[in-house]
Amino acid sequence: MKVDLNSDLGESFGHYVLGNDEQILPLITAANVACGFHAGDPNVMAQTVAIAEKNGVAIGAHPSYPDRIGFGRRHMDMQPENVENMITYQVAALQGFVKGHRLHHVKPHGALYNAAAKSLPLALAICRGIKRVDPELPIYGLAGSQLITAAREIGLPYASEVFADRAYQADGTLVPRVKPHAVLHDPQEVAKRAVHMIQDQAVTAITGEHVELQVDTICVHGDNEEALAIVRALRSALKDAAIEIAPFDPHHA
Amino acid sequence: MKVDLNSDLGESFGHYVLGNDEQILPLITAANVACGFHAGDPNVMAQTVAIAEKNGVAIGAHPSYPDRIGFGRRHMDMQPENVENMITYQVAALQGFVKGHRLHHVKPHGALYNAAAKSLPLALAICRGIKRVDPELPIYGLAGSQLITAAREIGLPYASEVFADRAYQADGTLVPRVKPHAVLHDPQEVAKRAVHMIQDQAVTAITGEHVELQVDTICVHGDNEEALAIVRALRSALKDAAIEIAPFDPHHA
Amino acid sequence: MKVDLNSDLGESFGHYVLGNDEQILPLITAANVACGFHAGDPNVMAQTVAIAEKNGVAIGAHPSYPDRIGFGRRHMDMQPENVENMITYQVAALQGFVKGHRLHHVKPHGALYNAAAKSLPLALAICRGIKRVDPELPIYGLAGSQLITAAREIGLPYASEVFADRAYQADGTLVPRVKPHAVLHDPQEVAKRAVHMIQDQAVTAITGEHVELQVDTICVHGDNEEALAIVRALRSALKDAAIEIAPFDPHHA
Amino acid sequence: MKVDLNSDLGESFGHYVLGNDEQILPLITAANVACGFHAGDPNVMAQTVAIAEKNGVAIGAHPSYPDRIGFGRRHMDMQPENVENMITYQVAALQGFVKGHRLHHVKPHGALYNAAAKSLPLALAICRGIKRVDPELPIYGLAGSQLITAAREIGLPYASEVFADRAYQADGTLVPRVKPHAVLHDPQEVAKRAVHMIQDQAVTAITGEHVELQVDTICVHGDNEEALAIVRALRSALKDAAIEIAPFDPHHA
Repeated sequence: MKVDLNSDLGESFGHYVLGNDEQILPLITAANVACGFHAGDPNVMAQTVAIAEKNGVAIGAHPSYPDRIGFGRRHMDMQPENVENMITYQVAALQGFVKGHRLHHVKPHGALYNAAAKSLPLALAICRGIKRVDPELPIYGLAGSQLITAAREIGLPYASEVFADRAYQADGTLVPRVKPHAVLHDPQEVAKRAVHMIQDQAVTAITGEHVELQVDTICVHGDNEEALAIVRALRSALKDAAIEIAPFDPHHA
Repeated sequence: MKVDLNSDLGESFGHYVLGNDEQILPLITAANVACGFHAGDPNVMAQTVAIAEKNGVAIGAHPSYPDRIGFGRRHMDMQPENVENMITYQVAALQGFVKGHRLHHVKPHGALYNAAAKSLPLALAICRGIKRVDPELPIYGLAGSQLITAAREIGLPYASEVFADRAYQADGTLVPRVKPHAVLHDPQEVAKRAVHMIQDQAVTAITGEHVELQVDTICVHGDNEEALAIVRALRSALKDAAIEIAPFDPHHA
Repeated sequence: MKVDLNSDLGESFGHYVLGNDEQILPLITAANVACGFHAGDPNVMAQTVAIAEKNGVAIGAHPSYPDRIGFGRRHMDMQPENVENMITYQVAALQGFVKGHRLHHVKPHGALYNAAAKSLPLALAICRGIKRVDPELPIYGLAGSQLITAAREIGLPYASEVFADRAYQADGTLVPRVKPHAVLHDPQEVAKRAVHMIQDQAVTAITGEHVELQVDTICVHGDNEEALAIVRALRSALKDAAIEIAPFDPHHA
Repeated sequence: MKVDLNSDLGESFGHYVLGNDEQILPLITAANVACGFHAGDPNVMAQTVAIAEKNGVAIGAHPSYPDRIGFGRRHMDMQPENVENMITYQVAALQGFVKGHRLHHVKPHGALYNAAAKSLPLALAICRGIKRVDPELPIYGLAGSQLITAAREIGLPYASEVFADRAYQADGTLVPRVKPHAVLHDPQEVAKRAVHMIQDQAVTAITGEHVELQVDTICVHGDNEEALAIVRALRSALKDAAIEIAPFDPHHA
């Protein structure tokens, strides 16, 4: 049994510094690197790729809506064809910085990730945009969402992503952050929950239902000490449960 | 004897339409496609690449300073390292849209082209930015300029570019546009001049000197009827002089 | 009886030219000038204000979502507080170019106009953003929409806008452009329809219902010859019906 | 005898936080607020103005070249007319957020400030851009520079600014940061130097010459503890020397 740990990196911009890339890198297996539309810029991308390569972490693109001021967290009503082109642009741009010019994966960011989880036309557009760059480049999408359906339809490799620190609804979607108990904060609880999700390939919904979920990769954060404590507890629990922490491998998924 | 004809394309942006790409494409052998920093956007790039491929025209990247409002025509005081990363970003982004993911060339745009013609550190930065994406990707630079020196130093293939409709100074640089007689407007005169430049691999400076120039590619424009008339006269004169019009080939340069 | 004719102007940007400002200006009474977020830039704003002042046309601000590539026509999911600040920024920026530093009105652009017509929180945010700049500055909003409700609630002057070339639904909203018969193209028909709308302060819905509408200002376009023909027919019909064409006056509304 | 202490504020942007506005505000008399071109955005501007007003600090605009990624620190080769319009846009935009809609001053930022200190055409363009918004709005410029010459020529009020922590050259310009001893770090030394500059209206150049300088305002920083220590030492020394710390007043300059 094994699992991939992914985290968002390279979110600095120009004079602005954001995140703890140096601290989170030794703890994860896959980095989602911002591509200059919601965060990052060519200099930050070059530096982030270099430091991720030095740490032996698999590098993925983290494309977004073109919304720097809103950090890609605001939904924008874009036509699928425009999304497709925007994805190709960002993924290919990042690929230019990577040794060997092959990325490990693509994970859509923020509002785009959330919108595509629910909208098949949007999810298909993202997958087509990736496929144009590299038909063997896996997409990371919310387990059970339209992103996974779209990847299957397009014939793109995919990894099903889960959030160990978030409550789930009976239909497999996340409880919105604004709702009570949507986010779990206790490191031990999150770690235990993650192990169960991987062992059972399922989660218990906030309303009690048993929800089946494929678990290929877990999203973790490195923004602050609380977040880092969760990742450390998670790694420790995975080790105790003999679950290997390794980058997602589409050929053995 | 042969020569390449290159022109700037894909300069539309969002709702804004610019240029006559459809009209100039059948007349040229190499298209310099804007990469979204001074002009173009992911949608325009996708469309321009598609139409260039349909016309069998070789596709190159046309990267620029990040200056959409000034159309990349204003010098910006950027550090070489930043230029290097900015070039990688734009060239790689365009490459994502091209079938087979190999570009034919890179031609820096506007103020960046002019600044790099004179500054070796800037020219080296551009060449390094290209080399990171593809070490066999030729750069188009002003004949005899620092861009050519830099390409030789970095080991990047290069094409020497001339401007048949521009007066030259004794040192091989262009007479600035603001000076009298800097730009030639008569199609026959421009065409004749181009043929001589290719046959002699030299040009007569505005002050009478004989200036040796390598001529691999000629820059032409398609913005208006006058520009198109010049290209047509040029093609006709090249044919009469038995000079083949073909995309630049670094292996036979 | 009188009516105001308003049109969108100043939509050029940098090197890109858009619209026929010179041709439409003599035919209208109020110009909605882009403020640099979806179109326009400081240079275009200065030029547009100058030419509008020369033509004696009342100058209004035409603020938008921050979406140049989408021309402000894509909905963005922005928090009301952010919209409020964004409106203040754009309206105040344009005011700086106007002689006497007083604008005549503000008309939200594109997707923002449409979203605020339906969402009271968004409409209130826009009105607050305007009020911070000038509490006596009228807003132009779709007749009968939430923009009018919000202006009343905030105590901001307002003008009710109608579209003489668009079909209406029974609830007073416009038939979406994608639906059949949504847009009227015949100049005489549009002109006649406008006169009736003003005389009756009402419109007949596409489904036959009589819909009461306050008519303070009519939106016209100058993009092409067809659009200009409509404006000319409209002016002629208004003259024949003895309806005065004059800028909206909040003190006599 | 009195002096104004000014500092750059409101440099956060979207999701990115920069600076210690809360800590520096109680120590200064005038805030230079970023206007959204190199830093800041409508939300940050609204918040910064509110907090400055709460602290009773005079509010000025801090306009810049349009260069967010370079934080306005890279020179751009802009035509004076474009600079003039760009200044009007930014100054007017900020004014919209200020109670009573009157700013206290304008201080150009970074590369624009430095370029205009040396170029009269650029300095004149900035002054014209300010004057269009408010002919009584003072400009802050480097003492003895072209910005001061331009303000006099245009008839705009002005404050001569000095840098107590920087070495001066014999011609009254600053020793470039890259040179040895260009920047002073000892709080007591900087404080003593400031008092002498105000009392003498002069400074001793790094090469020993006595250079006369008008001293209306001193630029201070709040970026870190070292910077704050300098401001505190400066305030203490000014108090001991019976020099009043008060916002610049053009009517008593």
